[in-house]
Amino acid sequence: VARILITSGPTRQHLDPVRYLTNASSGRMGQSLAQAAVEAGHEVVVVSGPVEIEYPPQCEVIPVVSTEEMLATCQRVFPNCDGLIGVAAPSDYRPVKVEEHKIKKTGEPLVLHLVETPDIVATLASTKRAGQWVVGFALETEDQRFRAITKMQKKSCDLMVLNGPEAISAHQNAIEVLAPGGEVVANLSGPKFEVARRLFSVIAERLIT
Amino acid sequence: VARILITSGPTRQHLDPVRYLTNASSGRMGQSLAQAAVEAGHEVVVVSGPVEIEYPPQCEVIPVVSTEEMLATCQRVFPNCDGLIGVAAPSDYRPVKVEEHKIKKTGEPLVLHLVETPDIVATLASTKRAGQWVVGFALETEDQRFRAITKMQKKSCDLMVLNGPEAISAHQNAIEVLAPGGEVVANLSGPKFEVARRLFSVIAERLIT
Repeated sequence: VARILITSGPTRQHLDPVRYLTNASSGRMGQSLAQAAVEAGHEVVVVSGPVEIEYPPQCEVIPVVSTEEMLATCQRVFPNCDGLIGVAAPSDYRPVKVEEHKIKKTGEPLVLHLVETPDIVATLASTKRAGQWVVGFALETEDQRFRAITKMQKKSCDLMVLNGPEAISAHQNAIEVLAPGGEVVANLSGPKFEVARRLFSVIAERLIT
Repeated sequence: VARILITSGPTRQHLDPVRYLTNASSGRMGQSLAQAAVEAGHEVVVVSGPVEIEYPPQCEVIPVVSTEEMLATCQRVFPNCDGLIGVAAPSDYRPVKVEEHKIKKTGEPLVLHLVETPDIVATLASTKRAGQWVVGFALETEDQRFRAITKMQKKSCDLMVLNGPEAISAHQNAIEVLAPGGEVVANLSGPKFEVARRLFSVIAERLIT
């Protein structure tokens, strides 16, 4: 039995109490991977951004809003886990300043200064101890495989899952699973719950001892 | 029988194919107002941003993504309606430029230039013909009543509903309904479906002939 940390869903980076930057991640792949892991008898902790879906009741679910919160929570949870599946789509930019009150419309343009948020998968992977494994996800719109392999190496992932923007919020998915040498170890497509189950089998076979 | 246009939910203003600006509007008040209007025997057209909830099957529902799309759709629908309930929370800023590909992280800050989107309620209200009515919503975090009354007058609304940011995405709501003279005509609080039903009664009594 492995203890697996799954990050899932989007995160939100607020400009003010109302407006925020985010993406359309639904949490469905995270939900399906959690389900597959639970069915295989593993312990699952899900750290999830705001989503409408529900995770399997056997999981421990920790809700978060921002990328910084997701990272801080994962840093607390990961040391006691055997592996991480980083399927969340955290917002990777945040406004430098979060206004306390709703920004008032003035008729003038607004210049928003953004900085990168910390990379959750890379940060956690850099603390991996012997036996711990990390599966990353890359969502690319161009030079997909090249970028995914670069990300895998930069982030010290043990497997990288590549998908395109059409996967976001959809019920279907088509993914490519890449190993650290750059070789494609699986090509999976179909309904997300089915793709997730087959992906989890690949992860289990290669990484869970 | 009145024909009523209800705008509902958030809108999204994309920076690139993945990232966008939005807010946490769930569409629940729009859903409940549509239900109340349908139950009162009215015809309802809902123009809705991306939401997870479903509208009553008796409504015509037109899904949109951005504020510009919501406005264009409403401009087509409103001339054949008796009134507008503008409960949507459209994103009121948009990036000047929408990148075709996902913006790559470079480690450097990102400066995002935003401009205001058109005000849907004000734009439609400015085209009101005799007998048409418009109900606006104001979500304020400070000087709430003063700002709501100013908005009502600037946007030529026949009623203005004031709520706070705690209403967004919640199941409960507490609202104040203001008439053009600034007087409070109703104070409603409770579960959203209940508040919506009582709000619709106020609208019907004052505006639907």
